[in-house]
Amino acid sequence: MKSPIHIAVSGAAGQISYSLLFRLAAGALFGPDQPIILHLLEITPALPALEGVVMELKDCVNPVLHGIVVTDDPKVAFKDTDYVFLVGARPRGPGMERNDLLEVNAHIFSTQGRALNEVASRDVKVLVTGNPANTNALIALKNAPNLKPENFSAMSRLDHNRAINQLAEKCGVLSADVKNVIIWGNHSTTQFPDITHAKVKDQEALSLVEKSWFINDFIPTIQQRGAVVIKARGLSSAASAAKAAVDQMSNWVKGTKAGEWVSMGVLSDGSYGITEDLMFSFPVTVTDGKVSIVKGLIIDEFSRERMRLSELELKEEKATIMHLI
Amino acid sequence: MKSPIHIAVSGAAGQISYSLLFRLAAGALFGPDQPIILHLLEITPALPALEGVVMELKDCVNPVLHGIVVTDDPKVAFKDTDYVFLVGARPRGPGMERNDLLEVNAHIFSTQGRALNEVASRDVKVLVTGNPANTNALIALKNAPNLKPENFSAMSRLDHNRAINQLAEKCGVLSADVKNVIIWGNHSTTQFPDITHAKVKDQEALSLVEKSWFINDFIPTIQQRGAVVIKARGLSSAASAAKAAVDQMSNWVKGTKAGEWVSMGVLSDGSYGITEDLMFSFPVTVTDGKVSIVKGLIIDEFSRERMRLSELELKEEKATIMHLI
Repeated sequence: MKSPIHIAVSGAAGQISYSLLFRLAAGALFGPDQPIILHLLEITPALPALEGVVMELKDCVNPVLHGIVVTDDPKVAFKDTDYVFLVGARPRGPGMERNDLLEVNAHIFSTQGRALNEVASRDVKVLVTGNPANTNALIALKNAPNLKPENFSAMSRLDHNRAINQLAEKCGVLSADVKNVIIWGNHSTTQFPDITHAKVKDQEALSLVEKSWFINDFIPTIQQRGAVVIKARGLSSAASAAKAAVDQMSNWVKGTKAGEWVSMGVLSDGSYGITEDLMFSFPVTVTDGKVSIVKGLIIDEFSRERMRLSELELKEEKATIMHLI
Repeated sequence: MKSPIHIAVSGAAGQISYSLLFRLAAGALFGPDQPIILHLLEITPALPALEGVVMELKDCVNPVLHGIVVTDDPKVAFKDTDYVFLVGARPRGPGMERNDLLEVNAHIFSTQGRALNEVASRDVKVLVTGNPANTNALIALKNAPNLKPENFSAMSRLDHNRAINQLAEKCGVLSADVKNVIIWGNHSTTQFPDITHAKVKDQEALSLVEKSWFINDFIPTIQQRGAVVIKARGLSSAASAAKAAVDQMSNWVKGTKAGEWVSMGVLSDGSYGITEDLMFSFPVTVTDGKVSIVKGLIIDEFSRERMRLSELELKEEKATIMHLI
């Protein structure tokens, strides 16, 4: 039998994890023949609720789930882990300013970055889902100097998947018929969801939809999709976020299909003129676990302006938490 | 491409469905090459929340999900459906007596039974999860005279899976090493979770654990597991219930393994002296979609007494709602 793969999940008693953990336990990432051990991290007050989740995980009798570690200590949680989902983050509370939110999360993710630096596998893949995801990922990365920047990514995949769905619905095709949408920038309302390079059944997307729809409907719909789901459900996107996290990690592990890219928040190398050392969502391909930013796409003035707006927001976020990195 | 399979889910905006729907959309039941169309049924006031769930389902861009029907009308929901999960049920409210609960659910399930009778596929498989599941299933079945009793089952699989897990933990083995536990009777605290015939790595379970553990620990743990999960999580079992629903339907569709059985609530044919015409959980095997109660197991006096207690409860439940069947 294969030896188990260790997967850590923070915020393990939260809503996204309640979808994510059961997917992982069902073999969503590595299939039905690869045993896994889940390392579940929570803050101390949430450990009793997490025990209930652990009972349910066990009651699923999934054959791949060979063990569960429960802890409130990041160094225990991340010990020898190969794959880490940083899902837990402090949500915005009443009276909390945006900068307060950045700061409180910066503390959480700097601690977790240091723990990863110390105890995780040197090839660990760390996917940050907890918001503000891009800047949280940057903080974790900067606090893990003995790991490589390539060990970290921020989640863009939920936005990416939402973009595929909107374009597919507009064109009356299945989501599988759409490829090469791009999410540029921050996982926030400044993101630029881009269909300029997208294909629908191998046709240029922009030959099938009106530019005005792209600008006035599509872009704001993707930017505000999270808020619309909250309004309808009374709760934020959880199941679709968990699915997207598995998708992003899955592509990171298994690679992307020939001729296709996905969107991932990675450390900018200056591509497309984006300031280095920001976690910025780019189109990427993955081969043998190595992520490469897609180069050479032609960026028109409209797109460049949108990308700049999101870059500016990320620079501001970084300035706020600069003392912690 | 294969033509889509139509799957209906009631209580689609509820907690169990929030786990179940995303499993179904991911191809959990029929695999990655079989398109499905989900028919989602909810009560009218829950339709706005259900819209949020639909957004998230679409945002998952699952290739097998080819369509979604949303309705508050059972006749629309069940039209030409091949597989139906009756998840929605009225939970016990403040000041509600047990008989009130039975009665209000009896009305829901008689309406749904009549709708199934009228519009569902003649080979429909209807799995009732909503509690009181066994009696709700009986009501639906009795209100569908043009379908066969074999079209209906009540969920025992969550209890069955819980029993596997407890026995595996006690013996220090993986859940995959345990087989042929049995849940007898009602999905309630009167159920009899039985390891008398169970095997652990092909050894008799009762040769590995003490009888006193079986009687004093194992049985009450399974009977009360739901309450313990609620106490820890603050919410009832949802993800594990959804997993169990997929497991039960999956065995119903694809059959059971040679030499193994599972537990399902089915219409009693008098086996083991259980009164006919009750939905009672038995050990069953499935071949080509046909469910057969496992015959000829030797039942000792202790077991017989436990089975009678649960049978008595089901007879009382049936008497309460007799006027609706």
